[in-house]
Parts: sequence; structure tokens; C-alpha cells
Amino acid sequence: MENIKTDICIVGAGPVGLFAVFEAGLLKMHCHVVDALPAVGGQLTEIYPKKPIYDIPGYPEVLAGDLVKNLQKQIEPFHPTFTLGERVENLDKQEDGSFIVTTVAGTKIACKAVVIAGGLGSFEPRKPAIENLEDYEGKGVTYMVLDPEKYRDKRVVLAGGGDSALDWTIFLADVCKELTLVHRGTTFRGAPESAEKVAALAEEGKVNLMLKSNVTEVFGEDKLEAVNVHLESVVHHKVETDYFIPLFGLVPKLGPIDNWGLELEKNAIVVNTVDYSTNIPGVYAIGDINTYPGKLKLILCGFHEAALMAQSAYNIVYPDKKYVLKYTTVNGIQEI
Amino acid sequence: MENIKTDICIVGAGPVGLFAVFEAGLLKMHCHVVDALPAVGGQLTEIYPKKPIYDIPGYPEVLAGDLVKNLQKQIEPFHPTFTLGERVENLDKQEDGSFIVTTVAGTKIACKAVVIAGGLGSFEPRKPAIENLEDYEGKGVTYMVLDPEKYRDKRVVLAGGGDSALDWTIFLADVCKELTLVHRGTTFRGAPESAEKVAALAEEGKVNLMLKSNVTEVFGEDKLEAVNVHLESVVHHKVETDYFIPLFGLVPKLGPIDNWGLELEKNAIVVNTVDYSTNIPGVYAIGDINTYPGKLKLILCGFHEAALMAQSAYNIVYPDKKYVLKYTTVNGIQEI
Ligand SMILES: Cc1cc2nc3c(=O)[nH]c(=O)nc-3n(C[C@H](O)[C@H](O)[C@H](O)COP(=O)(O)OP(=O)(O)OC[C@H]3O[C@@H](n4cnc5c(N)ncnc54)[C@H](O)[C@@H]3O)c2cc1C
Ligand SMILES: Cc1cc2nc3c(=O)[nH]c(=O)nc-3n(C[C@H](O)[C@H](O)[C@H](O)COP(=O)(O)OP(=O)(O)OC[C@H]3O[C@@H](n4cnc5c(N)ncnc54)[C@H](O)[C@@H]3O)c2cc1C
Repeated sequence: MENIKTDICIVGAGPVGLFAVFEAGLLKMHCHVVDALPAVGGQLTEIYPKKPIYDIPGYPEVLAGDLVKNLQKQIEPFHPTFTLGERVENLDKQEDGSFIVTTVAGTKIACKAVVIAGGLGSFEPRKPAIENLEDYEGKGVTYMVLDPEKYRDKRVVLAGGGDSALDWTIFLADVCKELTLVHRGTTFRGAPESAEKVAALAEEGKVNLMLKSNVTEVFGEDKLEAVNVHLESVVHHKVETDYFIPLFGLVPKLGPIDNWGLELEKNAIVVNTVDYSTNIPGVYAIGDINTYPGKLKLILCGFHEAALMAQSAYNIVYPDKKYVLKYTTVNGIQEI
Repeated sequence: MENIKTDICIVGAGPVGLFAVFEAGLLKMHCHVVDALPAVGGQLTEIYPKKPIYDIPGYPEVLAGDLVKNLQKQIEPFHPTFTLGERVENLDKQEDGSFIVTTVAGTKIACKAVVIAGGLGSFEPRKPAIENLEDYEGKGVTYMVLDPEKYRDKRVVLAGGGDSALDWTIFLADVCKELTLVHRGTTFRGAPESAEKVAALAEEGKVNLMLKSNVTEVFGEDKLEAVNVHLESVVHHKVETDYFIPLFGLVPKLGPIDNWGLELEKNAIVVNTVDYSTNIPGVYAIGDINTYPGKLKLILCGFHEAALMAQSAYNIVYPDKKYVLKYTTVNGIQEI
């Protein structure tokens, strides 16, 4: 739990949040950036770090991960500070018009303006549609393997067909007393080598591999005791277990942003294209999180939005000064 | 004089015009690009090719000339065609809603949509404020040395203090019967080596060097016969001459764009930020040439404008199809 004071608090460290630091920095405004994920880069880091992007202007081709690195380098002269791995929960306007931004861990950021660059929202586990599933969360049902030792000598049912399901199956095969992998298909989306290894573990009897199957029910008195597996829509099979861990990937959820009094439209924040301001004065929304007539969810659009936002935020951070646009080519970059 | 047929005619080959080819190409629209200058790149090529830009997103630093090269490479898969060195003079809407774009040289481009990416306009010579100067244009007064042989054994007065004045002084010293260089200062803005060479030529008596001086009047019956040079605001000196060539650099002028029926505001074209369309359906304006609330004359803003323009132009080029945004990372780049 920390108390931070800055000019602008940026919610979201995706490409657009990072570039907002740059545009703010050109105008001598300091930024603190908060992201729920442990690393910067947003979707580029979380979903496709090794894939090339072709529509970043001036880059015939650039790996998403490299674009993030270049943006980090570009903002260095402005010395932004970061709180990573903490989701922003609250946005409170103070009487003097400034804001207090609070994270799930209690970190508080006092700032003059807030820029929401929250993308598609914060990434949360995709949950299977099983009745009562949420009742067992923390009582045997979880969506992430944080500490594998927790599962030593326990019975565990994993579900999923991607890399994360395969990798944890391989890892937990030697840890658990009994391990079951339930997958709705017959082939895996994950790496072929991993799929082969899992098949081998199944043959050795170290893993119960249930293909063409879905977990359809969860049971237990106070905590999880068993799950029901439905095979090819015909056979039902009860598996007694201590843990059920569906690993169906992460999906972005608007999350707490929903409760900040912002005008929303289809899960996005409505903004004014003059400066990408929201209905709350002093709060801007840029990048995938916003919407306006003509909006395209593209990285290059978020960059433009960041530039116009900074001009407007300047009037809040420096109410007595007037900013005149200066070309970087002419003025260079001054550290702040 | 050529007849060209394409989907989109782009007026201006600056960074924004070039990137418009890319955004159009992603949507399978072919482009023909016209520029009054002999090279692509607009201001970046004409004014600051060797200077670094710091606010291109993802480039902590990039030379203007390199950015232009990268943009050229990025649009290669879409095989744009070019008419360079010809200013667009006319824009005529046809009965079927399509356009004929005509250049000063009579080249005609038939197209379904027009994108004006004309920057600050086309570059034209900066003229000194001398009364009647324009009366002598083509009759002894010119602003560019196109064919130096024209000046063999003639009397020529050059004016200016930059590279172009110095370079032509050096070149013409051996060509003219009598050569005078008039410069208002005592030092030159051009390359020091060139300035030294000009000083040497003056000592040898090959050039009349008049510093702290300005040409204030031009005379002649049917054609130029003499100019009046004003020295340090005290001495007036009459120089008999066949030619007077002020070399004060190029300045951008809106030029013919002024007469196309577009809604203008302070020398810029008013656009709708939904798609950067103008008041003429089928005509878009992007980059420095347009204006809207919040407008910043920055390269990165023009890139965003190009992306939104392309989505809208698609409905004109392919009225029967519906475009659904596809990420380049997912779909790659298809040549057209
Ligand atoms: C597979 C794929 C391919 C793509 N290809 C392209 C392409 O070729 N070209 C292109 O332009 N775009 C592409 N995109 C889209 C591009 O990734 C997005 O436009 C871009 O990531 C948007 O950037 P952003 O900074 O607005 O948001 P994001 O990248 O989504 O980052 C938002 C960040 O905000 C954080 N956050 C959200 N809410 C909170 C909260 N309450 N507290 C703390 N942090 C929070 C999130 O954790 C996240 O890190 C692609 C997307 C995908 C999925
Ligand atoms: C010294 C300097 C430094 C700069 N530094 C930066 C910086 O650091 N960052 C930044 O983002 N921006 C900077 N800029 C601004 C940047 O150069 C412009 O925003 C950019 O060039 C605009 O691109 P454009 O394609 O819209 O127009 P331009 O680059 O102006 O190109 C327009 C082209 O259209 C052509 N044209 C016009 N009318 C006609 C016609 N009728 N027929 C045919 N052709 C025509 C012109 O000849 C020209 O080539 C700087 C500008 C200068 C002068």
C-alpha cells in the first residue's frame, strides 16, 4: 500500500497508455501508470508478443513485443512510474477537482487528471458455463495455478485444450495424487510436443485423459468434492476430486471501470473527439476502451487520441499556462 | 499527358498521402498519387530530410528521410502509381459521382474518390516584396534557375543568403557576362564552404557581392533592364541587368485547392472527424491540409485520419460490399 502523487494517472499500460506518457511528457506532465497485469504492453504482451504487426505507420513489419519495447524506450526521458499487477478499483473526484485513484491492493494515486487506457478491460479468466461454479471459487474451484505445491498429493481435474492446460497437466502429473484432463475436442490447440507428452502420460496411466468431454456439473457440501463429466453427450461420469481448474484462457472484462459514473456504450467509454474527454471533466479515455463515431480499435488510432488528450490535459495540469505546439524535430526532447 | 484510371487519387505524396495508400491497400483499393514536387515525402523531404523526429510512435528517434523510406517500403505490396512534378489544378466531379483530377501538365486521373493530402499546399517560391515585380515575371524576373545556359553571357542579379543563392552564384560566375549577388546580411545561412567560395569569387572580381543590401525596385520598358539596390538603408545603387533571380526559398501555398469548392477555414479544408470527409461527397482531406476542432498538425494524427478515411472510401469504391475490420497481425498483407 503506497501513496503516490503525480500529474496524470494512466489506467492501463498497453501501447496507448505507454504512448500517452510520451505525449504528456512533451508537455512536461508527469505520469503514473497502473496495470492489472504484471507486465506492460496490454494485448500485445498478453496475447501476441511474438506476432508481427503490419499497420504501425513507418514499420513495414514489427513484432508486437518489439513495439512495446520501443515505446518503453521512447518514454524513458519522461521517467514515468508504474504500479503493475494491481487492478484499479476506484476513481474518486475530490472537492478541488483532483482525483484519487485506488487499486485493489490499496495503492492510492493522487492526480490532477486521469487517462483511462484500459483497452478491452482487465484480463480475467474465461469461465465455463457451469451452474453454481462460482459458489465453489476458493473452495476447490480456481482458474489459475499460482502455487503448484498446493496440489501435492491431491486429486485435481483440469479442463482446457490450449498450452496452459497441457503445460500444467505435464507439470502436475508428478505432483498430484490423481490428475484428470478434460478436453472437449480430440486435438489440442497447444504445442504439438506438449500434446504428445500428455498422450504419453495418459498411456503410462499418470493422467486420466478424457477427450470429447466437458465438465457439466460441480458438487460438494462445504467445498468441492466431485465433478460430472459429460462424454460425447452420451456418457456421464462422476470424478471425485479436491480441485477443479478450468484453464480456458483470459478474457478482457471492463470490470470496475463500469462503476465510475462514465457514460458507456457497448462496453466502451463515450468520448468527445476534440480531446477524447469523457463525461467526467478531467477524465479522458483513449485506445480500445473508448468509442466515438468512426472509432476503429487500432493501435495507431490510440496514438492520435493520446496526442489530442495531452493538449487538453495540459489546461488542467497547468491552468495558468498556454501551450503552443512545438515540433520535436525543432525542439528535441527535454527530460522531465 | 497521360490518362490514368484508379480507385482513389491521392493529391500529395507527403507522409500522410503515402500512408493513405497503405490503409486503402489493406481494403483492396488501388491508389494513384500526384505531387507537385519531383520527390515523395512532402515537408520531410523538402524541408528536413536529415533531421530526427522524436514523436513518431514506436520510434524513439527517426530521420525524416528514413521515415519516408520506410513508408515507401510499407506501401510496396499495394503497388501505387505516381505522377510526380505535376501540380493538380482541377478536380471535376462527373455525373456518375466519380472524379477527373487534372494536373498542370494535362495528366488526367479518373477515380472513384479523391483524398487531398496536400499538407500546407504546394511549395512555391517566396517572393520579395517589390512593387511591380510580378509584371516582369517571364520578362527577366524568375525564381528558379532551371536551365543555366539561358544566362550565358548575360547580366544577372541574384538575391538571397541560403544554399541555393550561394550554389548558383558559384555555378553562374563562369557563365554570365556580369553576375551580382545581393544579400541583406553579412553572413550566409548556407554551407560555410560555399560562402567562402563566393567571397573568393568576389575578391577575384568575378562576382559583385553586395552585402547589407536589398533589391528595392525593378525597371524596364518591355522587359527588365535594371534593379535598384538599397545599401544599409542609405546608399541607392542602380544595377543594369537582363535577369533578376530572387532565391528566397520555397513556401507552401494552398494554390489551386482554393478553387475546388471545398469549405475552407484559415487555409485548411474543413472535415468531419467521422471519416475526414469534406463538404464534397467522395472527397476526403487528411494531414496538415485539414482542420477540425482539436486538430494538431502532426504526422501521427494524419496517420489516424488516413485509417478512418479508408473505411469510408471503401463504401464508395465497393458500394455492394461490407468491410469488416481485420487485424494485420491476424490477416497479414495481401498484395493488390
Ligand atoms: C490477436 C490480435 C491481433 C491484433 N492485431 C492488430 C494489428 O495488426 N494492428 C492494430 O492496430 N491492432 C491490432 N490489434 C488490436 C490492438 O492490440 C489493440 O488496439 C491495442 O492493444 C489497444 O491498446 P490499448 O493500450 O488501448 O489497450 P490494451 O492493449 O488492451 O491494454 C489495456 C491495458 O489496461 C489494463 N487495464 C484494464 N482495466 C484496468 C484496470 N481497471 N486497472 C488496471 N489495469 C487495467 C489491462 O490489463 C491492459 O494491460 C490486435 C489485437 C489482437 C487481440
Ligand atoms: C521543420 C519542421 C519540423 C517538423 N517536425 C515535426 C515533428 O517532429 N513531428 C511531427 O509530427 N511533425 C513535424 N512537422 C510537421 C510535419 O512535417 C507535417 O505534419 C507533415 O509533413 C504533414 O504531412 P502531409 O502529408 O499532410 O503534408 P506535407 O508533408 O506537407 O505534404 C503535402 C504534399 O502535397 C503536395 N501538394 C500540395 N498541393 C498540391 C497540388 N495542388 N498538387 C500536387 N501536389 C500538391 C505538396 O507538394 C507536398 O509534397 C515538422 C514540420 C517542419 C516544417
